[in-house]
Amino acid sequence: MSPLALHPTAQDLLFREARTANTFTDEPVTDEQVQAVYDLVKYAPTAYNQSPLRVVLIRSDDARERLLELMAEGNRRKTAAAPLVALLAADNEFHQELPTLLPHFPQAKDALFADRPVREESALLNATLQAAYFILGVRAAGLAAGPMTGFDFPGVQKEFLDADHTPLMVVNIGRPGADAWFPRSPRLAFDEVVTTL
Amino acid sequence: MSPLALHPTAQDLLFREARTANTFTDEPVTDEQVQAVYDLVKYAPTAYNQSPLRVVLIRSDDARERLLELMAEGNRRKTAAAPLVALLAADNEFHQELPTLLPHFPQAKDALFADRPVREESALLNATLQAAYFILGVRAAGLAAGPMTGFDFPGVQKEFLDADHTPLMVVNIGRPGADAWFPRSPRLAFDEVVTTL
Repeated sequence: MSPLALHPTAQDLLFREARTANTFTDEPVTDEQVQAVYDLVKYAPTAYNQSPLRVVLIRSDDARERLLELMAEGNRRKTAAAPLVALLAADNEFHQELPTLLPHFPQAKDALFADRPVREESALLNATLQAAYFILGVRAAGLAAGPMTGFDFPGVQKEFLDADHTPLMVVNIGRPGADAWFPRSPRLAFDEVVTTL
Repeated sequence: MSPLALHPTAQDLLFREARTANTFTDEPVTDEQVQAVYDLVKYAPTAYNQSPLRVVLIRSDDARERLLELMAEGNRRKTAAAPLVALLAADNEFHQELPTLLPHFPQAKDALFADRPVREESALLNATLQAAYFILGVRAAGLAAGPMTGFDFPGVQKEFLDADHTPLMVVNIGRPGADAWFPRSPRLAFDEVVTTL
């Protein structure tokens, strides 16, 4: 018996056969698909349920053009070709929502997160966790995700966000196209990663 | 038809019914289970396949005692009770493995990651993504994860790691026990998180 409860088909969909795509078909990614992804991954855990991830969907030609100019050269072509591009960011003012998000500990907003540097560190960590959940959520929709950090971070913040939101990554989303990826690269073995004390 | 390809049972297992557990049964978590979790989540993406996550399994009574002294008061009892505790860390010297991990771009080690501050930033981001994959992998094994950042970070680094490894979080792992969680807290609505340009 496998030690995993997750069905092998789901293991393949989310982990073993899913790959970071560099090319895409023309098939659109719908708002309904994005909403289904969000409504699934929103349940995955963050500290104090702070849920600091914010998402900007780049749908208009104008927004896409502005983003492309801020992407690293090597990411530009695939970001131009992706049916949908999502900018993931951390909300450094997430504590404003905490009284709603954490009803059994409404003091958390002021007791733990009154200081902006504390919030920034917590938002970065927890929004990054949520970015990972989002990537797997895209895969759960049968789509490929292409996460990238090769872009002009201050430029993207200025162009698409504000001083309270820190860019984390840009994710290309769509169905994989022709020659969508390199052969799978090796992974570290269990004994190279895990030690026991 | 649902916009998600992932089977509803798997959606429940990983996201909707899975919860962060605060109490656990006595059922042990085996090395075989942990290995199956790792061998699944190792495939999820990191930048340049850098795979900086490292895991320390706290199995001995001595290691558990030393960890408990470094946990925040509010986390101590559940960390004492968890069948298995894992310390997740980022390897700031991950670039040493890059020639193996990224065979189509072996220059990445020196061209991109020669500078330690660059490595630390990249390791933190990518190991945090892998921490999220790990949490979902624990759920894929039918177990509950209890991730925590309430502990003495410098103390944990000194006691269990070294100067090249940065602690990320401590994760309690096991089957949920009695009164394992609060009622599910609210999540932000799609329109509160996602904007379209």
